[in-house]
Amino acid sequence: MTTDIEIAQKCRLKPIDEVAGVLNIACDELELYGKYKAKLTDKIWDRVKDNKDGKLILVTAINPTPAGEGKTTTTVGLGQAMSRIGKNAVIALREPSLGPVMGVKGGAAGGGYSQVVPMEDINLHFTGDMHAITSANNLLSAAIDNHIQQGNKLNIDPRQIVWKRAMDMNDRALRNIVVGLGGKANGFPREDGFNITVASEVMAILCLSSGLNDLKNRLGSIIIGYTYQGSPVTAKDLGVAGAMTVLLKDAIKPNLVQTLENTPALMHGGPFANIAHGCNSVMATRLALKLCDYVITEAGFGADLGAEKFFDIKCRCAGLKPDAAVLVATIRALKFNGGVKKDALNAENVEALKRGIVNLQKHVENIKKFGVPVIIAINHFHTDTENEIKYVEDFCKDMNIEVSFSEVFSKGGHGGADLAEKLVRLTDKEPSHFQPLYDVNLTIKEKISIITKEIYGGKDVLYTGSAEKSIKKIEEMGMDKLPICMAKTQYSLSDNPALLGRPQGFDITVRELKLSAGAGFIVAVTGEIMTMPGLPRIPSAEKIDIDENGVITGLF
Amino acid sequence: MTTDIEIAQKCRLKPIDEVAGVLNIACDELELYGKYKAKLTDKIWDRVKDNKDGKLILVTAINPTPAGEGKTTTTVGLGQAMSRIGKNAVIALREPSLGPVMGVKGGAAGGGYSQVVPMEDINLHFTGDMHAITSANNLLSAAIDNHIQQGNKLNIDPRQIVWKRAMDMNDRALRNIVVGLGGKANGFPREDGFNITVASEVMAILCLSSGLNDLKNRLGSIIIGYTYQGSPVTAKDLGVAGAMTVLLKDAIKPNLVQTLENTPALMHGGPFANIAHGCNSVMATRLALKLCDYVITEAGFGADLGAEKFFDIKCRCAGLKPDAAVLVATIRALKFNGGVKKDALNAENVEALKRGIVNLQKHVENIKKFGVPVIIAINHFHTDTENEIKYVEDFCKDMNIEVSFSEVFSKGGHGGADLAEKLVRLTDKEPSHFQPLYDVNLTIKEKISIITKEIYGGKDVLYTGSAEKSIKKIEEMGMDKLPICMAKTQYSLSDNPALLGRPQGFDITVRELKLSAGAGFIVAVTGEIMTMPGLPRIPSAEKIDIDENGVITGLF
Repeated sequence: MTTDIEIAQKCRLKPIDEVAGVLNIACDELELYGKYKAKLTDKIWDRVKDNKDGKLILVTAINPTPAGEGKTTTTVGLGQAMSRIGKNAVIALREPSLGPVMGVKGGAAGGGYSQVVPMEDINLHFTGDMHAITSANNLLSAAIDNHIQQGNKLNIDPRQIVWKRAMDMNDRALRNIVVGLGGKANGFPREDGFNITVASEVMAILCLSSGLNDLKNRLGSIIIGYTYQGSPVTAKDLGVAGAMTVLLKDAIKPNLVQTLENTPALMHGGPFANIAHGCNSVMATRLALKLCDYVITEAGFGADLGAEKFFDIKCRCAGLKPDAAVLVATIRALKFNGGVKKDALNAENVEALKRGIVNLQKHVENIKKFGVPVIIAINHFHTDTENEIKYVEDFCKDMNIEVSFSEVFSKGGHGGADLAEKLVRLTDKEPSHFQPLYDVNLTIKEKISIITKEIYGGKDVLYTGSAEKSIKKIEEMGMDKLPICMAKTQYSLSDNPALLGRPQGFDITVRELKLSAGAGFIVAVTGEIMTMPGLPRIPSAEKIDIDENGVITGLF
Repeated sequence: MTTDIEIAQKCRLKPIDEVAGVLNIACDELELYGKYKAKLTDKIWDRVKDNKDGKLILVTAINPTPAGEGKTTTTVGLGQAMSRIGKNAVIALREPSLGPVMGVKGGAAGGGYSQVVPMEDINLHFTGDMHAITSANNLLSAAIDNHIQQGNKLNIDPRQIVWKRAMDMNDRALRNIVVGLGGKANGFPREDGFNITVASEVMAILCLSSGLNDLKNRLGSIIIGYTYQGSPVTAKDLGVAGAMTVLLKDAIKPNLVQTLENTPALMHGGPFANIAHGCNSVMATRLALKLCDYVITEAGFGADLGAEKFFDIKCRCAGLKPDAAVLVATIRALKFNGGVKKDALNAENVEALKRGIVNLQKHVENIKKFGVPVIIAINHFHTDTENEIKYVEDFCKDMNIEVSFSEVFSKGGHGGADLAEKLVRLTDKEPSHFQPLYDVNLTIKEKISIITKEIYGGKDVLYTGSAEKSIKKIEEMGMDKLPICMAKTQYSLSDNPALLGRPQGFDITVRELKLSAGAGFIVAVTGEIMTMPGLPRIPSAEKIDIDENGVITGLF
């Protein structure tokens, strides 16, 4: 079988200025990074900002399973398919993190014949956005420790510093560390830790900012910790919001790349979908809408996390109005939801499919609650049987939802033409009545309760003592009128990863609340959320190599 | 007074492909990073590798003083001056580190009317080389801790790990840390620390590598620590040399920028000049020699460290043959060497000049020991008096050395025309008989003794018990036939920063030896060498800002 990297290395990339030309972007509006990557300058926005918006399509999925659903592959393939059927489309994706590339994960740029390229560069340093975010994050950390070392005028309590350092690496040994050892010249010892860069609030901020000024204001609002008296201390108090913004002056510009079929793709920003909102940048999406008739974007994890946050956080914050959602699933993943073990997924099992498809059904119902038209995209596998396909078709018909079996992995855009045609018809005939799920002016507990009941299908929300305390603190600070960013397992609609399908009657336990004052949301943490991954027994790094001609092997 | 950044922002940059055109580099041989930065691809080397080499000119200086000597400014100004007098010249410089930009230091790209631009970009993320080096360094660290966590098959002794993590930030709190806290899932606790990226052996390796294969071999040879039995463990043993090379695949390509007067400048690599060799990359220098008649390069700190390592490490390793050296000084700095306090340097003081000029004299003698013709460049200040100038001129005449008073800071290339003319004449009439100072096959102690006596003018070398032990260990490993990289204070010819001028009769104490097996040298540490700077009371970061149009202020 041909691997993703082999397919990608064989494809004929167009020079990026030609790809930009398709979007009527002139060469001098680009900042090139090599021949196949570019940043889009502010000039473009200034020129197109009064254009009519294109249609905004969200690609989301059922709860992820080890069987794989192919959400990014569908996003890319759909973009390619739109071009194939003569529509003017652009893809707006998150950019991948370098850390996991060295661990277990494959590339985060689609798969098979639906990939974004140049995939090596995209999955390595790309245009340096992650590194810029890491630098801005760590400048703030250095400023905190330096402030304490130089006399601690702000009276920062070293036990109450909530800001962590960041690195774009899977490195478990950095999760919990002690810094400042070695005596008087080397700082005050205190507990600290590193997050992987995509889990940094700086990443969330970059993705939600509307421009340089907004970026600077948001960075300045970051709460790094508290004084001995319990008052919040911000990045602005430390005087480094300007310098952090300077470090991000290029990272804030959207990146332009292309798919294997030369469809333009904006890849920009990539926040975690648990402790952050999991979508590409507002600046990229807004710009894409001005450049094209159809913008295909995606959100992290399943629709319970990704779509909910896309709607309630990103669209609300940026005033975006999504026109339709594509809900991705595979028959294999639905059977897995119905209780079939991973190694038995090749065998026909309509009963399991029946038990598992309720997961899909619940996500369809959820998306409708936001007033957004929805279509189902089943990534077709050769192991899917006629009976299974028929069952899914009938089920969708009963739900009165359009379904398309797509083959974008093996056939590229051609394999998604049916999906593209159906999507265009859907957006033509069914207007979106988008609205967020809840009012931000409700109390924190009311907001979490609405998400839990309406989206997860759960019963009650339980709060630990520490969570109760945090809520009180946030309310006292007057910062409670913000949207909620749920940090929950992606594997279940509940907070228990073992509950597949459509669990009911469960409670959600909120262990902890974190205020991301710069990003503008309150993170409600349920269960254990990992913000710094580790490397596996045999990391991918051991397989990655390069020869004297610069040809890379072992990357995915 | 106009600041450096104001001068830089007012200059008319040429598109970088035009600058490349001056070197007969075609547009498709470049990888553009925006309009004014580019990486030079291997294609160029393949095309020009059989060209005759141009002349290699090293710019070095007396021991640095708080008065400032202007070595980089002279390097840039001399490059500009060569163009002015109709010579085909290129500048080969180190690229600056981001960390100090947020601390106290001004830009590391020259000053006044002799700067390399775009200075904001160069001093911020530039083309991402520093970040790539940081990533490669930290991948190795993650692999070490992961290996131990996953069973420690190599039997690495966590107490004997010598490899540190890296960050391009001034952050004293990271000098001494404990990692791996938090229980079984989060690694084994051990002592660790961060170096600033430019102090990483990866940086030294990148700068000494001749290509991708050599880079991979050198990275693989890095000794990360020792087993419980005392055997060395390498990056190759951990299986990550290939992945580290992949992370550096773009960083290894030289960067092309330009001066304020559009002279081409290769800026590539920037290792510390104490624990590393302090010169730009071998690949950039070699390529520059094939592209131009004159290559103006510089080495870190004063000639006792910078020039000695340039000759004994870089030129030896790369088979380079320098044609001349320019020794930079100021009358102010010479007076400082003669005992004048910083705030009294404006007043004429020929006696102090007389006491201090012996520092210059010693460096001239040293450079001659390498068989390299030398010329003196005095950066002219308006406070220099006629008597002082005459004294310097007479002194140089007595030494039979050409001297030029240059005004490149205030006048750009025009202010260096006399220096350029004299330099051209020198290289035309006086052939270089370059040879390194010592034979690498001598013992470690013999090599250190030669450097101490011949270059520093010292008497004996004392070794601590720990240093003696290290020497024995390195000899047992059969790794002692490598050049020595002295880590010594830059402020004095001795290892005592307070001994200015030309100290005599002093001893040097070697505290510690470190084997940089990948870089291919043995570091002999005298005194305290800081490999992670801290931020000052009021860091530059607090003054740096950017407005909504992207205009940066407070950077230098």
